[in-house]
Amino acid sequence: MPHRIYMDYNATTPPEPEVIKAVTEALQEAWGNPSSNYIAGAKAKAIINHSRENVARMVGGKAEDIIFTSGGTEANNLVLHTAVEHFRKNCRAAEQGEAHSNGCTGLPHIIISNVEHDSVRLVAEHLQRDGKADVTSVPVSKTTARVEVEDVIAAVRPNTSIMVRGDREICQRIKSLNKQHERLRILLHTDAAQALGKIRVDACELGVDYLTIVGHKFYAPRIGALYVNGPGTRTPLYPMLFGGGQERNFRPGYHMRSTKLYLEERLRAVFKDRIRFNSHYPGSDNLPNTCNVSILGPTLQGWRVLSNCRRLLASVGAACHSGSGNRPSHILLSCGVPSEVAANALRLSVGRGTTKEDVDIVVEDLRETVQLLEEMN
Amino acid sequence: MPHRIYMDYNATTPPEPEVIKAVTEALQEAWGNPSSNYIAGAKAKAIINHSRENVARMVGGKAEDIIFTSGGTEANNLVLHTAVEHFRKNCRAAEQGEAHSNGCTGLPHIIISNVEHDSVRLVAEHLQRDGKADVTSVPVSKTTARVEVEDVIAAVRPNTSIMVRGDREICQRIKSLNKQHERLRILLHTDAAQALGKIRVDACELGVDYLTIVGHKFYAPRIGALYVNGPGTRTPLYPMLFGGGQERNFRPGYHMRSTKLYLEERLRAVFKDRIRFNSHYPGSDNLPNTCNVSILGPTLQGWRVLSNCRRLLASVGAACHSGSGNRPSHILLSCGVPSEVAANALRLSVGRGTTKEDVDIVVEDLRETVQLLEEMN
Repeated sequence: MPHRIYMDYNATTPPEPEVIKAVTEALQEAWGNPSSNYIAGAKAKAIINHSRENVARMVGGKAEDIIFTSGGTEANNLVLHTAVEHFRKNCRAAEQGEAHSNGCTGLPHIIISNVEHDSVRLVAEHLQRDGKADVTSVPVSKTTARVEVEDVIAAVRPNTSIMVRGDREICQRIKSLNKQHERLRILLHTDAAQALGKIRVDACELGVDYLTIVGHKFYAPRIGALYVNGPGTRTPLYPMLFGGGQERNFRPGYHMRSTKLYLEERLRAVFKDRIRFNSHYPGSDNLPNTCNVSILGPTLQGWRVLSNCRRLLASVGAACHSGSGNRPSHILLSCGVPSEVAANALRLSVGRGTTKEDVDIVVEDLRETVQLLEEMN
Repeated sequence: MPHRIYMDYNATTPPEPEVIKAVTEALQEAWGNPSSNYIAGAKAKAIINHSRENVARMVGGKAEDIIFTSGGTEANNLVLHTAVEHFRKNCRAAEQGEAHSNGCTGLPHIIISNVEHDSVRLVAEHLQRDGKADVTSVPVSKTTARVEVEDVIAAVRPNTSIMVRGDREICQRIKSLNKQHERLRILLHTDAAQALGKIRVDACELGVDYLTIVGHKFYAPRIGALYVNGPGTRTPLYPMLFGGGQERNFRPGYHMRSTKLYLEERLRAVFKDRIRFNSHYPGSDNLPNTCNVSILGPTLQGWRVLSNCRRLLASVGAACHSGSGNRPSHILLSCGVPSEVAANALRLSVGRGTTKEDVDIVVEDLRETVQLLEEMN
């Protein structure tokens, strides 16, 4: 077969060798949960922050303006979702006399063009079909193949909530409309998926509120991002997904269970009647790899023990909650664990590679830490 | 610093070396857009299909039951979104006399427990706050730390649309409720994020409609999946994201522009007055890397030319539309390109690494292909 020549770089680009290297290294060295408090998590967090700064620089924004997404589709969906929510919240506030009610008649109005990517067009059509928005599709000029600014301005209604496909001139005109007397602010978006890496893109110069970024179109990793000019402050942003706050049954769990049982046995031997296992319930088939345990004592709160351990890396509960302070796990409290026991809880979860030697080191580490904390008192 | 011991495998796991190898190889060898028709796309598609079969086997489902997502958060959000949409569609059909209206009073009712992960709890709270659903949070038993089946059954209302955290017994009881007289079907979900790779998980045995899968919890890539028992057929599934239908400004575009100009020059030299450039508009700053071109002739439709080229890999338009047949691009038609010209369009997009030699080979390939197609006629 002759050597083939690829001329479909607009469909996707091969990732750069340095991109592949960065992804591979991150999988090897920075696999921690970025919300975890120890070093593996901190490395992941540092890489994410650094990437956020790079992406921001690429589009002329600030790091805090960049929201990573699974791809361009999620970014574009998030923008139209936000426009609908923005209208709804604004008009609800108006009903309660907390905002002007100009434009609060009927549904939010969305302006797109007739040459949008499906991740814009299909969302708009879905919102219209579901009775959640009115959509105007402005045809591009047959002589310039561009959306003409006068056609956009003619499509604006009092309830227009967003204009997609804003170029510099359109953004300027819409912004001056936004300043004219009290009206619903028209949000401005552009999808820069095909432009980035090929032509100059500067969100500030363009004057857009939102700009979609798609990694695989410019030799980068297979994710996306949304630039938002001051997300949640200068520019509204309403999440579509709610959750942890961050962006194969290979083999059965026999080994993990035996490691956990050994861990429990060692903890019992060292701490005797001061140990409480928080997940021992009659008949409960709890996870074979997880030991949720409290060492009783007024100075032995879980966070305090962990931050004084020299060897052990573990958590007091779900990593997603690391930002929410040192309150005892609501899950333990819900399960009837008394609050002074729940406050001391450690979630020790072992993996397939955890050895008995690891367990011995961890239990000795805990013994020394408990001794230290009680002497300090 | 002493060697640290990681015991937080429930927060996340390090990807297996073979997983890192598979990811790296895919980035190197299978970077094509899986919706593209040529080999780079086919490789990516084959890997995705193979992975889908593996994930299905892991949870006792079929390949078509697996929907890949960005992670567990998206999977859990998708399930609750579907429950609300399912209620809405069912009750709208009832209004039109096309379905029974049992349960169609007020809002859809969601049953969760008081120990859910944030990607369930926060979604439910958001739906309740927004007036889109009623939520009952069933407390776990303080003696077994589990949701008791009788507590769940007591929480069921005529408008209950979904029960999250279904174990085998709960699923059986709910299913027999579903069979009793005509009522709104209660959907069943379980989040297997922490269970997979540790204990046996079989969606059929459990009897759930949906099951959440999270790769990074079991040494796998950092994505998620949702098992759905017959998505869109036996079990409803309503998408949250709409788009293409598939699951740095490094350097400016000078080199790409000069390559494209050379490509246009060569095409003009070879095909003379039979060539039409579909993106030449006065004043239009089109992408520096893209040449949308038609070679005129009754047998020279874009798909026919591309499928007979021996060297050139390109497309007739956005890869997302590869499934929608060989109709001319609606974007070109919108821009005023006549339909017999649009039907012959080829989207040739060059990359940073495309050379003049590549261009020469491609133009010769096109010349031979056009000759062949016209002789065949």
